[in-house]
Amino acid sequence: MAGLLDPLFRTDAMREIFSDRGRLQGMLDFEAALARAEAAVGVISAASASAIGQQCRANRFDMKALAKAGALAGNPAIPMVKALTALVAKQDREAAGHVHWGATSQDAMDTGLVLQLRAALELVEADAARLSDALAKLARKHVATPLAGRTWLQQAVPVTLGLKAAAALDAVERHRTRLRELRSRVLVIQFGGAAGTLASLGTRGLDVTRALAKQTGLAEAEMPWHSHRDRVAEVATVLGLLTGTLGKVAKDIALLMQTEVGEAFEPAAPGKGGSSTMPHKRNPVAAAVVIAAASRVPALVSTMLSAMLQEHERGLGNWHAEWETLPEICMLCSGALGHLVQAVKGLEVDAARARKNLDATGGLLLAESVAAALAPRIGRDAAHALLEEAARRAVTQKKSLLDVLEKDRKVKAHLSASRLKAALDPAKYLGVADQFVGRVLAARARRI
Amino acid sequence: MAGLLDPLFRTDAMREIFSDRGRLQGMLDFEAALARAEAAVGVISAASASAIGQQCRANRFDMKALAKAGALAGNPAIPMVKALTALVAKQDREAAGHVHWGATSQDAMDTGLVLQLRAALELVEADAARLSDALAKLARKHVATPLAGRTWLQQAVPVTLGLKAAAALDAVERHRTRLRELRSRVLVIQFGGAAGTLASLGTRGLDVTRALAKQTGLAEAEMPWHSHRDRVAEVATVLGLLTGTLGKVAKDIALLMQTEVGEAFEPAAPGKGGSSTMPHKRNPVAAAVVIAAASRVPALVSTMLSAMLQEHERGLGNWHAEWETLPEICMLCSGALGHLVQAVKGLEVDAARARKNLDATGGLLLAESVAAALAPRIGRDAAHALLEEAARRAVTQKKSLLDVLEKDRKVKAHLSASRLKAALDPAKYLGVADQFVGRVLAARARRI
Amino acid sequence: MAGLLDPLFRTDAMREIFSDRGRLQGMLDFEAALARAEAAVGVISAASASAIGQQCRANRFDMKALAKAGALAGNPAIPMVKALTALVAKQDREAAGHVHWGATSQDAMDTGLVLQLRAALELVEADAARLSDALAKLARKHVATPLAGRTWLQQAVPVTLGLKAAAALDAVERHRTRLRELRSRVLVIQFGGAAGTLASLGTRGLDVTRALAKQTGLAEAEMPWHSHRDRVAEVATVLGLLTGTLGKVAKDIALLMQTEVGEAFEPAAPGKGGSSTMPHKRNPVAAAVVIAAASRVPALVSTMLSAMLQEHERGLGNWHAEWETLPEICMLCSGALGHLVQAVKGLEVDAARARKNLDATGGLLLAESVAAALAPRIGRDAAHALLEEAARRAVTQKKSLLDVLEKDRKVKAHLSASRLKAALDPAKYLGVADQFVGRVLAARARRI
Amino acid sequence: MAGLLDPLFRTDAMREIFSDRGRLQGMLDFEAALARAEAAVGVISAASASAIGQQCRANRFDMKALAKAGALAGNPAIPMVKALTALVAKQDREAAGHVHWGATSQDAMDTGLVLQLRAALELVEADAARLSDALAKLARKHVATPLAGRTWLQQAVPVTLGLKAAAALDAVERHRTRLRELRSRVLVIQFGGAAGTLASLGTRGLDVTRALAKQTGLAEAEMPWHSHRDRVAEVATVLGLLTGTLGKVAKDIALLMQTEVGEAFEPAAPGKGGSSTMPHKRNPVAAAVVIAAASRVPALVSTMLSAMLQEHERGLGNWHAEWETLPEICMLCSGALGHLVQAVKGLEVDAARARKNLDATGGLLLAESVAAALAPRIGRDAAHALLEEAARRAVTQKKSLLDVLEKDRKVKAHLSASRLKAALDPAKYLGVADQFVGRVLAARARRI
Repeated sequence: MAGLLDPLFRTDAMREIFSDRGRLQGMLDFEAALARAEAAVGVISAASASAIGQQCRANRFDMKALAKAGALAGNPAIPMVKALTALVAKQDREAAGHVHWGATSQDAMDTGLVLQLRAALELVEADAARLSDALAKLARKHVATPLAGRTWLQQAVPVTLGLKAAAALDAVERHRTRLRELRSRVLVIQFGGAAGTLASLGTRGLDVTRALAKQTGLAEAEMPWHSHRDRVAEVATVLGLLTGTLGKVAKDIALLMQTEVGEAFEPAAPGKGGSSTMPHKRNPVAAAVVIAAASRVPALVSTMLSAMLQEHERGLGNWHAEWETLPEICMLCSGALGHLVQAVKGLEVDAARARKNLDATGGLLLAESVAAALAPRIGRDAAHALLEEAARRAVTQKKSLLDVLEKDRKVKAHLSASRLKAALDPAKYLGVADQFVGRVLAARARRI
Repeated sequence: MAGLLDPLFRTDAMREIFSDRGRLQGMLDFEAALARAEAAVGVISAASASAIGQQCRANRFDMKALAKAGALAGNPAIPMVKALTALVAKQDREAAGHVHWGATSQDAMDTGLVLQLRAALELVEADAARLSDALAKLARKHVATPLAGRTWLQQAVPVTLGLKAAAALDAVERHRTRLRELRSRVLVIQFGGAAGTLASLGTRGLDVTRALAKQTGLAEAEMPWHSHRDRVAEVATVLGLLTGTLGKVAKDIALLMQTEVGEAFEPAAPGKGGSSTMPHKRNPVAAAVVIAAASRVPALVSTMLSAMLQEHERGLGNWHAEWETLPEICMLCSGALGHLVQAVKGLEVDAARARKNLDATGGLLLAESVAAALAPRIGRDAAHALLEEAARRAVTQKKSLLDVLEKDRKVKAHLSASRLKAALDPAKYLGVADQFVGRVLAARARRI
Repeated sequence: MAGLLDPLFRTDAMREIFSDRGRLQGMLDFEAALARAEAAVGVISAASASAIGQQCRANRFDMKALAKAGALAGNPAIPMVKALTALVAKQDREAAGHVHWGATSQDAMDTGLVLQLRAALELVEADAARLSDALAKLARKHVATPLAGRTWLQQAVPVTLGLKAAAALDAVERHRTRLRELRSRVLVIQFGGAAGTLASLGTRGLDVTRALAKQTGLAEAEMPWHSHRDRVAEVATVLGLLTGTLGKVAKDIALLMQTEVGEAFEPAAPGKGGSSTMPHKRNPVAAAVVIAAASRVPALVSTMLSAMLQEHERGLGNWHAEWETLPEICMLCSGALGHLVQAVKGLEVDAARARKNLDATGGLLLAESVAAALAPRIGRDAAHALLEEAARRAVTQKKSLLDVLEKDRKVKAHLSASRLKAALDPAKYLGVADQFVGRVLAARARRI
Repeated sequence: MAGLLDPLFRTDAMREIFSDRGRLQGMLDFEAALARAEAAVGVISAASASAIGQQCRANRFDMKALAKAGALAGNPAIPMVKALTALVAKQDREAAGHVHWGATSQDAMDTGLVLQLRAALELVEADAARLSDALAKLARKHVATPLAGRTWLQQAVPVTLGLKAAAALDAVERHRTRLRELRSRVLVIQFGGAAGTLASLGTRGLDVTRALAKQTGLAEAEMPWHSHRDRVAEVATVLGLLTGTLGKVAKDIALLMQTEVGEAFEPAAPGKGGSSTMPHKRNPVAAAVVIAAASRVPALVSTMLSAMLQEHERGLGNWHAEWETLPEICMLCSGALGHLVQAVKGLEVDAARARKNLDATGGLLLAESVAAALAPRIGRDAAHALLEEAARRAVTQKKSLLDVLEKDRKVKAHLSASRLKAALDPAKYLGVADQFVGRVLAARARRI
């Protein structure tokens, strides 16, 4: 069941994966696969495997009882194995003796987790692809829409909305590569028994390992990794990087939505972003959710990294620290992705307002352009100094930069009136912005 | 409903406070108190206040609908106010017009949160008092139980179990002081309306403020604090400090429980700490839970601190970042406290094993004692060097330190055989450990 | 020597305290005080104490050699004691035997740290007082300067600049209280010998303790706290909270300085905030530094909290983790404080621009005001709905809210033209903002 | 110059890279390469490029003056460009006008940083290779050295030291892959001018870009990435993952070095790990340093992730937050690597003590082995219960498990005395540990 804040912060699909049921089913999928694997190599009978497999369904278990027993046992896999054994015993006493054969509770929990992560990564990759599409579309559409480039929150020189979208797209594409590269390291089984030697399986450890990998559709690991947590911690870091990019884009949207800027807006929807007291407001709800995720995930990533110092063959407490942290990262990331895809897809752009904002400083934004036009004549430093002074005069005298420059003798001596005007046209001072957009789109196309 | 891992990581009482129901009721308590306050000062009618108060019960609300609407609105207070208004309207149309009068959604959420925190802090203080009692008892009981003092995980010189308990007790008492000092800063109402001016109440803003504080049993704040979050962030830091101490104590217990040390143990209980594969094991479950909490809380505290940079009159996204983070800190801290109180209360001490471990190094642990006995005769440096050398010989020749020292001419020249033996008795090299314990207990007694 | 980025991020005064020389002198001050204390109670001779004290000057030590030896020893106190002993021995062989008598290296390092923290806290308190003064002045001066209140980065209802300053002032005053409360817990000596029993001092441990406290001007602790780190971690958390507030204020300044907002500015200075390429730009340098500090400190606080899990009588590695982290927190906090004090003191306010921005939405900002005026007549919900609709029309038809409302029949029926206009005057919709400012200033005055 | 703690925490080589001189030279290398690139494509003259290149040497700059000016300018690149221009002007006035042509300060700082990171990653990769070698050697040598496997800090079942080494090796190899994959994303130039459009270069932006990449030996980026920080943040995360593994291995070494365990030791060295007060102690100094790094780096990684939310075309403050954070991660990681390589290479193993510890529990450690031997006869649950009970009896009656089991009727009925003894031999209960070691070594060999 969704909690009060879940629909705001998390997608239903990701919550389903990391629900209690999802966690339990992950462990049960491990147990069923283990039984099938052991039957396949002759360690247990096919009948046992079948009897075990039949009971490996989460809805047959009393979640409340498992929760209570897990609080004493120290993890949920121990009571799960007990309960599964009891269920199987009702149907087949011999099979009951083969439940969880050769495995340890962490084998079930970790492999179960990897199965959950496989589904989670698929979701994230699908949503990242949708975000990539939406950004590509935005980049193409607004390749020539000028707006103020802003550095340190100050208007700097003109850019295009397409360039902003392409920069985000470029980052998202890097994240997609990272997600791909990560797969081979994390989508592996965990199987080692009590301390990673598979001792209780005698000489059959590797046979079962191989068969188990096949049954789960995961890769074998060279060896168990119970207390070496880089595989799962890497999922946290890659999603952390992705969430950072989402936050960056959301922050820009929120800044563009400011009453005083008003250049782009999250799509409106009935009941969305209204205020309980201010009828005119249109709050950037998607941005808020994404920024919230991007504020929370970095710390959760640090927990996953700190928790890597797990003692000997299995950690004490630091392993426990992962159990809710990694799922939370997945859920917050997916919630942020979901919101941002919608916001980018439906982004409402007010190009006229963007143009108007470009003029708001009376040309100050193009001081560099004029300086660049002057530099070949009077030197970069002199040009820079001249414009710095002119800009200061424009600001203090509340004039436009054009007014000030037109009256400047040095400027007149080096730039004609028309060259000066051209130098003050934002649409003519966009450099290779369109080519950058083109390169990003082309690189993306090559990748598809 | 408890989730699969909740009984392991969180106490029922704290989860109840921070359940969805708890959050909703906190906001409703604000609305009811606001209505009563406004009636008391004549801003709305007593009949309206009564009609509103009657509907301010969490169980009258459709949590699922609120969750869904909150995802669009950007916070749960907006749909709560709408739903409350609708409920009141069914009984009294005029009263419906007075719901949430003059307030903004953050007023309801923050004051509701403070009401939750008041209950949470009471729980934490009660559990901290129980931990203090348990540690005081342990300190008294084992004031003369010697065990190896360990620095850098190496045996150093003897200490007592009482001293270890007293050190923890001393820290816990500091945390109790911090919790007390914190109250006046956090147990205050939030009430400012749309942007903190109470403008929609005209000239009556302060009258309502005063009455609202009275109705909630909270203090007034000098002014609203919507985007100044130090009050709630401080709760996070104080619980963070407390959880750090809990983790330290739990880690020591786990280290003492090591198979090779075996000096103290968490109390046993049926089903507790068993392994799914190793019948002989007795896992430190309480320690694991406490360490897990102490691994997670610091990062959550950093989120609360990062989230303090809230924009202008109300933050964007960083306020959202608090909503689940602070409750999680409270819940993890309380879960850790609950486990640790039980572990300390029921701690099983094996004093004989502790004594045996003291002898394991053949007296190396008392090298400082011998050095101290020699120093007045041959100087500190010479004594230190002599013992360093003797200790090295004892280790390499696998002899006891006594054996090596008895044969050392310099030692013989300066220490009699009986003085040497006395210098090697751990029970005689405890310094003022007992007086330190006494001081800590006395300071605690003064405080009560 | 200042590093390349030090003058940007740190104050000279705080860097001096936490320089290598400062760290070494802190430890030497401990050694000198210890010798004096031991002489005072007759454990060593007055001549020894004097001979030791004479050498306890940082500039007599070869820092490079200490650094190298510390890398092997595992901490800088061990080679410091060796070097000090050698220096003393050159003058007085007997005294050399009394160097560091009864102490352990952590006693020197921790007490030295506390001495550094005493100086650091004094600096912070002085700067916090200056910030408080500057904010109080700003609050008084602009108690009636209206500007747009902004929530979620959207204009909401009018506030005053004085109210913004008062809110920050209120928070700063809370931090000053926290700093005061903290002193008694952190300004204490550390003195326990090898494992906290003072065993090598025999029965004289407490006598020396008492005398040492006197000599250092610090308080006694009830007992040593080598592995209970809440005292120093609390310094981190309190400075973390303070830095959060600084970051919030700096962010607001940066947002107000935006080209499109332009309501307040950091003071200008030659060479300050210029751009290498854009002559017109005036970057919010102070805000950048403060925000950088507020981005870094929370994570450093989490390290201090994580590092609290120190093993047994002295931690392994986690103690080491503190050594540079806490000084860094102090330095970043002080750098941020220094920048913000200047920014607030010299803040340039453009009240006319603020007034103009209030009008930019054509009155939308006062929709709540009109709704409030209408609510007594038609009910809160109806009024809210009416304004929501009117605001939407104003936005889509690009009209002012006044235009839309003047033509609304319902509005006309309930509000006269003059009442409508009054409801749309921002200066008349400031509620009790001035009284809030007064309360904050009065509370501050009471505290002085 | 090395600070007091630098030789302990950081390698000289890495400190050199991230020294102030290194940072300045990185920026100057950018400026020189830019000038050469612009000359190559004809934007400036070859003479200018040569004149500029001649001055791009860090030792020609007054670091103190740069530091002071940077505090006003808000970053060190602005005064660097001014100072460089002045230096060039002394030789060639025209060339001076071409310094930094078309670039912005962040172009210099970011490309400079990437050049530093290139050197840093080479160091890390070389040290990781050395660690891999040392672990491979250890794994091979101790493939058959049994010691107690420990889970939750309790002895579980036997493992081998070779298996422990192989598990670490397997993780280190994954990190080496991550480091390789990372290169293509981070080793790219930053070049965009004021807001990422290269507008001041007119139509020549891409030509210069291409030439600049060639001159620096870095790859081109599709477009500038001034405010998209995933490239550099990823370096932080990958080093964070690596440091986590280092910490895990160091913690295990420290635990094995415990007085009560004594199975493996960091190599001894004169002056290393001694105590100022306890002559017999041998502190795990390397482990302490590595654990300290692993305690600090996760939080620093979270700062890098939080700092990703950089506004528009260039961030405010969050970019600043990176400047010292990423270098610190590199330095702490490299310090930890350096210490751990030495510790693993020189690891002293006490196999006899390890064997003795295996016997310490009287066979409890092999309870699973006996349970496994019994399970085929009496079922897994019954076997588990029987052993759990027998283990409990052995513990409470202070007998060996063998004693208890020999007297158990059920056991006798199913296991012969010799089978029972064999089941209690640790060297015979190592499962496929040796094969796991072999697989890890083989995979590593394939990779080389």
